[in-house]
Order: sequence, then structure tokens, then C-alpha cells
Amino acid sequence: MELVCLDMEGVLVPEIWINVAQRTGIPELRLTTRDVPDYDELMQGRLAILDRHGLTLPDIQAVIGDMGPMEGAKDFLDALRRDFQVVVLSDTFYEFARPLIAQLDWPTLFCHRLEVDGAGRIAGYRLRMRDHKRAAVAAFRDLNFRTIAAGDSYNDTTMLAEADAGILFRAPDNVVREFPQFPVVNEFDDFRAAIEAAARRLAEGPA
Amino acid sequence: MELVCLDMEGVLVPEIWINVAQRTGIPELRLTTRDVPDYDELMQGRLAILDRHGLTLPDIQAVIGDMGPMEGAKDFLDALRRDFQVVVLSDTFYEFARPLIAQLDWPTLFCHRLEVDGAGRIAGYRLRMRDHKRAAVAAFRDLNFRTIAAGDSYNDTTMLAEADAGILFRAPDNVVREFPQFPVVNEFDDFRAAIEAAARRLAEGPA
Repeated sequence: MELVCLDMEGVLVPEIWINVAQRTGIPELRLTTRDVPDYDELMQGRLAILDRHGLTLPDIQAVIGDMGPMEGAKDFLDALRRDFQVVVLSDTFYEFARPLIAQLDWPTLFCHRLEVDGAGRIAGYRLRMRDHKRAAVAAFRDLNFRTIAAGDSYNDTTMLAEADAGILFRAPDNVVREFPQFPVVNEFDDFRAAIEAAARRLAEGPA
Repeated sequence: MELVCLDMEGVLVPEIWINVAQRTGIPELRLTTRDVPDYDELMQGRLAILDRHGLTLPDIQAVIGDMGPMEGAKDFLDALRRDFQVVVLSDTFYEFARPLIAQLDWPTLFCHRLEVDGAGRIAGYRLRMRDHKRAAVAAFRDLNFRTIAAGDSYNDTTMLAEADAGILFRAPDNVVREFPQFPVVNEFDDFRAAIEAAARRLAEGPA
């Protein structure tokens, strides 16, 4: 009984803030925790930028909806859901993810929530919990699922390590180098094959 | 951040064994734990009956696929998945659920697994864990979700009690009488309204 936990941005959909920056022509929205290590400072800065440009949640949702999932992601996910239980684990917000999750036919998503006022202004955000991807994988293991987790970035590596099997998808070189224990795949066909190989290996091992 | 846990049989799809009994014309398959209190004895009996009639997994899957979801269930679930995270918790088996879950567009399902041999004969079964519905709800609460659980029968009441809010859907009189703490609904419109009322109540209470 395998359960596959997938990161969302960089695996199924484009990086949301980077694409919002491009599509709105607001380069400051490209900043990440590499530039502003304190996440709350980064997020408050992003929300202040949106305010300054008069961008409300519906504006941003329209931009995000236009991105669409990554090429091949919908077919990959459709096929995967026929053969495995799948939960998407992401550090984005439900309100941002919604237009993309709709295009992916509503897979189950664990992420965080924005605080939005009556006029659609994004007033703040609420993290459901820190390191929730790892915690979710641990919870699924405790429910006796064999867990396979896949993601593309540094912040996915705790869930990959927690899972019975971890896979890196289109990960940057530094992550690939630092975590040689995880197989690396770059195309959806190979990704599916890596998930199946992990499932077979887990089925042969202790239950 | 609400997560709705739904029982499957009697809520989204018909009772599987009762309908298999009707559609195959094998009345002994109607027996439930009310008739044979020991679950393993009941299941081994069911599998022996299938063997005796030469019924393989594909035969049973065809019968189950023909049942279809309950009237109104697909529309209810489609709409619910747009506004809540939904996980289906069931004591059936993935192999039986599959033709129905396909017709419901693959919601996430936690249940159990059959052991099937190369010829399609159902050789046994494996319960992922006992009382897994309650355990799943507890795990989701630990992940800081507000949980709303709904089911129709006695064996759902531990998950209803574990959840932040529990709802009975088309429950038999004895369950309704024994668990007056849970609101009872019988139509999908009222079901949706009860879920929204619970979500509002939880949002107003302590996070």
C-alpha cells in the first residue's frame, strides 16, 4: 500500500513567485529565501509589494491560472493517481495553488493559507506548521503506508529522507551533489519508472 | 484549513458486498459482521464462496463498476473537493474500490489491500491497520488540520468522535439514537450545508 508524496512547485507546476514576477513585470517578487533568509520578512515584503501595485488575490490568481501546470505534469499525475495514492505537499498557499490544482483535477493538497480581507487584499498568511512535508510523510508511515516522496529542492530533502524512498526531480546540481543517496530523474517517463522501481523494492523488503 | 474525511460505502457508493450478492445472485455474500462477528472468519468465508463460484477479481470488479456511485454523490464530491481537502477513509479494499473511485475522478483513498494470484483469484487480504479511520483523523489533527468526518455506520463513530466535527449521513436509527452528539443528514444538499456549518463553527473556535 504505497502512497506517493509529491512536491508541487518545480514538479507539477512552475515556481509561483518567479512566474508572478515575470508576468507582472515586478522583478522584486523574484526574491527568495536565498536573498532574504528570514521567511516572514520575505513574505511580508512580498505582500507589501503586492499592496503597492494594487494587486489583489483575484489578480494574482488570474496570473497563476495562466501559468498552467508544467508540460507533461497533468498526464503524469493522471496516470500516477490510477495506480498509487497521491498527496501533494507544498509550502505555497491554498489560494495561490487553487487555479493550478483545478487544472490538475483536484488532487489532495496539504499546504498553508492566506489571510484575505473582504476586498481581496492579501493581509497576511498562516503557516499550518513548520516542516509540514516531513511531518506528513511521518504520519503516513505511522498509518502503515509505504511512502515514496519526490521533490526538486533543498526544502524537500527532509521529507525525502523521512520517506521509505526519496526521489529528486529536476533538482539543481548543488542538491544532487549534497544528497547522493536519492536517485535523480529529469523527465516524467523516468520519474514514473523511478516511482515504480521504488515501489517494487519496498514490496520486496519488510512490510 | 479544513480537511473532510468521508466514509465511502453508504456515503459515496453502495454497500459493496450487499450489491455483489444481489448482482451475482449469491445470497450468502450478504452476510456481515452482524451475522459473523469475527471479521477474519467472515472474509475467509466470502473468499471461499467466490472460489466456489469461480469468481475472480476481474469478475467482481466488473460487477462493482456496474453499481456506479450513489445518485448525487459525484456532484457532491466534485463540489466539495473545490472548497475542502477531502480524503476518503474506507474499510474496503483498493482492488474493489478502484472501479468506483475511477468514476469519482480518483479522490485520495485510504483503505486495505487484497492478495490476488496470477490468475486473478483473490487469495487473501491484508488490513493496513485496525481502526485506521480514527487513526487517520488523529494524524490529520496532529498536522494542524481542522477535521470534519462523516459516515453512515457504527464503525465510523470512532472517527467521528476523533474529528473536530462529526456528521452522520443516512445512518440507521440505532446509530442515530446511540450517538445523539452528531448531527444527522439524509440528502446531499443538507450534507454540504452541515459540513459548511461545521467549518464555520471550527473557524470561530480556537484554531
